[in-house]
Amino acid sequence: MTLRIGIAGLGTVGGGVVKLLAVQAELIAARAGQSITVTAVSARSRKDRGFSLEGLTWHDNPVALATDPNVDVVVEMIGGSEGPAKDLAEAAIAAAKSFVTANKALIAIHGAALAAAAESAGLVIAYEAAVAGGIPAIKVLREGLAANQVSRVAGILNGTCNYILTTMRAEGRDFGEVLADAQGLGYAEADPSFDVDGIDAAHKLAILAGLAFGAKIDFADLHIEGIRRISDLDISFAQELGYSIKLLGIAERTGAGISLRVHPAMVPLSKPLATVDGVFNAVQFEGDFSGPVFLRGRGAGEGPTASAVVADLIDIARGVRIPVWGQAAATLSAATIIPISAHEGAYFLRLMVTDQPGVMADVAAILRDHGISLESMLQHGRKPGEAVPIVLVTHETNEAEVSAALLRIAALPSVLEAPALIRIEA
Amino acid sequence: MTLRIGIAGLGTVGGGVVKLLAVQAELIAARAGQSITVTAVSARSRKDRGFSLEGLTWHDNPVALATDPNVDVVVEMIGGSEGPAKDLAEAAIAAAKSFVTANKALIAIHGAALAAAAESAGLVIAYEAAVAGGIPAIKVLREGLAANQVSRVAGILNGTCNYILTTMRAEGRDFGEVLADAQGLGYAEADPSFDVDGIDAAHKLAILAGLAFGAKIDFADLHIEGIRRISDLDISFAQELGYSIKLLGIAERTGAGISLRVHPAMVPLSKPLATVDGVFNAVQFEGDFSGPVFLRGRGAGEGPTASAVVADLIDIARGVRIPVWGQAAATLSAATIIPISAHEGAYFLRLMVTDQPGVMADVAAILRDHGISLESMLQHGRKPGEAVPIVLVTHETNEAEVSAALLRIAALPSVLEAPALIRIEA
Repeated sequence: MTLRIGIAGLGTVGGGVVKLLAVQAELIAARAGQSITVTAVSARSRKDRGFSLEGLTWHDNPVALATDPNVDVVVEMIGGSEGPAKDLAEAAIAAAKSFVTANKALIAIHGAALAAAAESAGLVIAYEAAVAGGIPAIKVLREGLAANQVSRVAGILNGTCNYILTTMRAEGRDFGEVLADAQGLGYAEADPSFDVDGIDAAHKLAILAGLAFGAKIDFADLHIEGIRRISDLDISFAQELGYSIKLLGIAERTGAGISLRVHPAMVPLSKPLATVDGVFNAVQFEGDFSGPVFLRGRGAGEGPTASAVVADLIDIARGVRIPVWGQAAATLSAATIIPISAHEGAYFLRLMVTDQPGVMADVAAILRDHGISLESMLQHGRKPGEAVPIVLVTHETNEAEVSAALLRIAALPSVLEAPALIRIEA
Repeated sequence: MTLRIGIAGLGTVGGGVVKLLAVQAELIAARAGQSITVTAVSARSRKDRGFSLEGLTWHDNPVALATDPNVDVVVEMIGGSEGPAKDLAEAAIAAAKSFVTANKALIAIHGAALAAAAESAGLVIAYEAAVAGGIPAIKVLREGLAANQVSRVAGILNGTCNYILTTMRAEGRDFGEVLADAQGLGYAEADPSFDVDGIDAAHKLAILAGLAFGAKIDFADLHIEGIRRISDLDISFAQELGYSIKLLGIAERTGAGISLRVHPAMVPLSKPLATVDGVFNAVQFEGDFSGPVFLRGRGAGEGPTASAVVADLIDIARGVRIPVWGQAAATLSAATIIPISAHEGAYFLRLMVTDQPGVMADVAAILRDHGISLESMLQHGRKPGEAVPIVLVTHETNEAEVSAALLRIAALPSVLEAPALIRIEA
């Protein structure tokens, strides 16, 4: 018996799947109960990729993989939420073939609709590789923690951002320099905005939130901030205060609804997420019976992504048929998402002010007016008449009040630039 | 549709399963595609356990659950590798019922034979709760990393030992005192030997090794050391040298065969396992494509264990039928296990010596004779003529040489007690 695979897209990830299936053929056959073999491929060019395509059917149009009679399962490695990736997903389902993808944008944006179509046809859509690469985060959440009401998901979901933040801290350099180096090393794209502006992490968070809460997530409801505005000054204050700055994706149930947000956060150094450095990814789930479950591993790259894609293929070969979102698509609820203005938490605020008497009194009066109490305040050195940073750490408070207070603080004559705000996440 | 469950054993864990199934009934039905309901139980006494047994069939003999016509799946929460737990497993399979257990001893010792019987009857034996409690370690290894050749598994698999070692370090107290406190708090049994002598961790390691290597593991082949001989002196030297002492279970492929061992280890503080404190468990898998995958969570207790048992039940309700060991039991290989004397690694050695000239020269000469080179040597303070500790950290070397050298060192007149040896694990 053989499960026959058609792969669309032979870039790093698609090529990695072809190589993994060849290298581990014997082991996979033993574990899957049948061999898993690539029979057809589609890519933009027939250039040499370092592995043989001999014996494989070539399709110029990826959508043709769906109707190739020698393909049982379609693997989509093209990317993008629209266009050929989506066309191929729909064609595969229409042709009664299961569909495996690493495409976070596609699943985050069209996952609920695709699930409904797939499930009514008894098909699988599998996407372990879409979130956190080599970490089986989807499987842990959807199956391992299936007995739990999950109250919170928090993760470092973008390796590029984590690499940049880690390097900024380790080398004391600023964002622009480190980004340029990361681009040179291939850790960041020429157009880095999907990564550094938080979109990629938000796609992954939307998927995790859909699974955790059994909810249809509208991607437009996510609050998304990237890391461009993180300064080396904030990073050094973070270290002094016992925090590490991480770009987190957080999905949590609150009394008022679900909070879905991607933003830089101050993470206490005692917490597992604070210690995840470089290109590593990590996710923490809070289950009501399991307690916290923390996962850490490689979030991207040829090997880890191929590991996840082939795990999905082995599941399909083993006959595993779990609903795309862990429950029938028709039973997913409409989620009530709270706006970021309703966020409750502690805040790190940094002001650049003219060092002169009375500044702190003005700031303190405004914070008092908004009911915001301070845990600590830092100002290093004295430079009368010059610009100095002041750092304020608040107790738990409400974001709407913080925003209103910061508007007033920014308008003070002694405050020289827009205040920096970084949420503190325990 | 309802999946009907019979539970044998209503202690903390069995009771937790009954409670979880009741509390999460609606969520579980949505995720499992059918309700999961306890219909029958068996326990040693009918004492009040804080939940109602009304409407459930009571069996004085747990083995009767296997043949109860209103039971589809048997859940065994009795414990022990022999006796009623094993009888019940065999009876369940004979009665064509799938079997779910948290019993690490049973699976470690009889798992291969039980798997062969279950698979020929198309039945499931599920044991997520047997290893690392609320962490889905079995699922991650058997399914999430199924595309990988796993070269190494290393874990903190016993929460009692980790609690004791963490408390010894935090409070500077010795093993006996902390153990007594742990017994008072319910973190250690009245007879603590299964935990503190490493047997419990070894059962879990044997299971992980069987899955990782697709091998039949003979439990007698494991090298097992516990934590009784760890002194507060070793813990403080560890801190000074940048290590944390953890009881690790390690299964790794080497050129000569598979190394399977449970022993205290010096773990560099920069490694994820070093930061896992208190009752938490953690496991790290090294996959050839995935890279390192690290998991951390609660390793025991009512909620985490129930979470794992019910995840297995949801898998069964969802129709998941994966071979017990991740591949057909008939295809498991005979593992070549290397003895601990063939271990290659770095070592922490502590000697208690009389502080007098010439001791280090004698020790250094013996190490040289055995081809052992030193990375560092520590001796604090001077107390001429009195007993002082000397700590030696070796470069990578062979355990047989280290043992031979230590025998000679122990025989030196200036060496006052048996040297301490702790392996260093990166």
